[in-house]
Amino acid sequence: MKTLFKNADILVFENGIYSVIKNTYLAVDGDKISYIGKDFPDGKIDITKDMTGKLLMSGFYNCHNHCPMVLLRGVGSDLPLNEWLFNKVFPIEDKLTADEIYAGTNLALLEMLACGTVSFSDMYFEPQVTAKAVAEAGMKANLTRPVQSFDPDEEAKDSFRIAQSIELYNEWNNAADGRILIDFSIHAEYTCTEKIARAYSEECNKRTGLMHIHLSETVKEHNECKEKYGKTPTQWFNDLGAFDSRAFAAHCVTLEDSDMEILLSKGVNVVHNPSSNMKLGSGFAKVQKMLDMGINVALGTDGAASNNNLDMVEEMHLASIIHNGYSQDATIMNADTVIKMATLNGAKLQGRDDCGELKVGNKADIIAISLDKPHLRPVIDEKALITYSAQSSDVCMTMVDGKILYENGEYTTLDKEKIYFDVEKAIKKLY
Amino acid sequence: MKTLFKNADILVFENGIYSVIKNTYLAVDGDKISYIGKDFPDGKIDITKDMTGKLLMSGFYNCHNHCPMVLLRGVGSDLPLNEWLFNKVFPIEDKLTADEIYAGTNLALLEMLACGTVSFSDMYFEPQVTAKAVAEAGMKANLTRPVQSFDPDEEAKDSFRIAQSIELYNEWNNAADGRILIDFSIHAEYTCTEKIARAYSEECNKRTGLMHIHLSETVKEHNECKEKYGKTPTQWFNDLGAFDSRAFAAHCVTLEDSDMEILLSKGVNVVHNPSSNMKLGSGFAKVQKMLDMGINVALGTDGAASNNNLDMVEEMHLASIIHNGYSQDATIMNADTVIKMATLNGAKLQGRDDCGELKVGNKADIIAISLDKPHLRPVIDEKALITYSAQSSDVCMTMVDGKILYENGEYTTLDKEKIYFDVEKAIKKLY
Repeated sequence: MKTLFKNADILVFENGIYSVIKNTYLAVDGDKISYIGKDFPDGKIDITKDMTGKLLMSGFYNCHNHCPMVLLRGVGSDLPLNEWLFNKVFPIEDKLTADEIYAGTNLALLEMLACGTVSFSDMYFEPQVTAKAVAEAGMKANLTRPVQSFDPDEEAKDSFRIAQSIELYNEWNNAADGRILIDFSIHAEYTCTEKIARAYSEECNKRTGLMHIHLSETVKEHNECKEKYGKTPTQWFNDLGAFDSRAFAAHCVTLEDSDMEILLSKGVNVVHNPSSNMKLGSGFAKVQKMLDMGINVALGTDGAASNNNLDMVEEMHLASIIHNGYSQDATIMNADTVIKMATLNGAKLQGRDDCGELKVGNKADIIAISLDKPHLRPVIDEKALITYSAQSSDVCMTMVDGKILYENGEYTTLDKEKIYFDVEKAIKKLY
Repeated sequence: MKTLFKNADILVFENGIYSVIKNTYLAVDGDKISYIGKDFPDGKIDITKDMTGKLLMSGFYNCHNHCPMVLLRGVGSDLPLNEWLFNKVFPIEDKLTADEIYAGTNLALLEMLACGTVSFSDMYFEPQVTAKAVAEAGMKANLTRPVQSFDPDEEAKDSFRIAQSIELYNEWNNAADGRILIDFSIHAEYTCTEKIARAYSEECNKRTGLMHIHLSETVKEHNECKEKYGKTPTQWFNDLGAFDSRAFAAHCVTLEDSDMEILLSKGVNVVHNPSSNMKLGSGFAKVQKMLDMGINVALGTDGAASNNNLDMVEEMHLASIIHNGYSQDATIMNADTVIKMATLNGAKLQGRDDCGELKVGNKADIIAISLDKPHLRPVIDEKALITYSAQSSDVCMTMVDGKILYENGEYTTLDKEKIYFDVEKAIKKLY
């Protein structure tokens, strides 16, 4: 199956910055980009798509999500953090079963595909259900069964939790033509005993696992860890071996300079979640500093309960402007930086080295941005338009591994009305 | 002409908070809302519109804009402020004539109507051209001819500038069935002499004028004023009589507590511009504090050159979350607060007392939000959806004074293709 995009403007990454190749051809053969050039390509073409007035770019890699939490969208907004979690979120989550997780995942997939997201890193219960939905939909995901453990004497429960992760890994890692990868996940320092964190890190190290954690999201978490253990959360994870395998840490709002040095030396990736950090009142991660140090920083939405959407265009926009305001410096976090965070840095974080930019030989994870809307005129600087002016609704096509999954409001693998019906059923049970 | 919306969910403001009346009728007679209720209304209906799955609410009042600056969208993004202004913005603005202003205004009107904005407060050159475009389009606007003056000895030029404002006021104030109001405008402390600021304030006071200014946008501006005059910009304006008439001040990022007391005691309104304040690195206005004191704070986009769009849904979202992050408090700037800022507070600021909320007898400035998209499901809390989850593309209808000007991507009074053509022509001249 060979698809040809013609009359396309293409955003490519060369020599450390993005530039636009105007009015060119891009061919997709199977799941890969096979040609980019000014001349009509050789060989048979199955489908030709005219991209006049559209910009093709890499799809987005949403590197921190709890996707079934779309079922809790808007619940308890504006409440204090603990009240929101304990009185609203946890009682609803207690009622969740595989059926609701499946409906919630599918709703999240509808949303993410419409926003140009091709792959996401998730951390939630019942990940085998999420894996099934992702496989069916044709998307990509890095999934985990996060461990939480509050009692160091609960040896049997801890062993079961670890066994669940290994079972998920054995069953789903590299499934669906490599679209699904299984990561490991220690939820956070404040939700785990040292014992299980150490044992679980060892299991991750034995495999090719990628460790997904929450790290120093709030001042409270950070300071309480120092009081309890005499070390920062970063030191705690590092001492327990969690960074001896490849790892990535969400939030990282309250890191100290010495923490960043540890993350850099251990090759730990960071996920910046600007909407969530703002909405929940967590604060401002030192993103430009971490990038300048050489830490790979990607972007994520966090779950929709604390965002309240899964919109990577919005995250790019926020990442590009809030740090300017906080540091009173208009030059940091520029368009090149945030576009790379949302695409190439994310693909690298997920261990998908042949993804995240449009070049020959890479996987065909391609989105089209329609430039026809008034808020995207005039077209003087496409990178600025994507970063500062666009909405995710400007994404008019999302292709994953060479297959168009979303185009102009329609889905090729997902049944929107059926998913809405299932979500309504879930809501009736949960609320 | 009588329009009936049926099966509508309607966002209304009662007892200090917003609530949704489900599945009801709303009738529009001429330019006013004539009925809201559960029963089919009496009398002849000309047009009936089924609003199933849509939420009706007040349109948005964008209270600080330089709308023709859409022609500079994306130009010089990420540059330091002075370099951006002096090397990019000013040389392009020097080439602007009435033709380009007209094309730019019309592009801005296309964008604003698609984003649910019904009225805006503008400050730019050639406002009579903007007035003409607004009158033709059926929108509302408060327009000004801002004065700037750097030389206290240029008496003739200053008199001419003041005369221009008065001429604009005489020609356009209350024009187009009251949709167009003419305000006065001293651009800013740092761009004006005391002499013209005082003389111009007197002219404003003689009429029913509303004074539109930039105030304490940056630390630099604020501190340089104190060094030069021994007083803050707020004290400077107040001493010159600029607050003796009704007035509103954009930005207000670096106000001191004593400045806020002056604004409160003089009844000066404030416009918060979160995108612009973040992107340009200006900082965080103390919005929740000003609201708590009783100052009327509305929202604005600023010009598209420093935003880079005219999207009030985005401004609501930013206003609702960035201050949580800055103050590490998730409970401030809640959904009720920012929806009111974008609607009722804005209408009040503009002196449009019969606008800004859906109630019988008010002007029919109504927008419809489609709740059909995945990022707006499930519908548990409509206020949270509008504030935290929506995009402005979810606006599917914009009605101003009882006339539908925008619906599902189509305009009833503006010719999009013609405007795009005119904008391309302007761009060829400017760049």
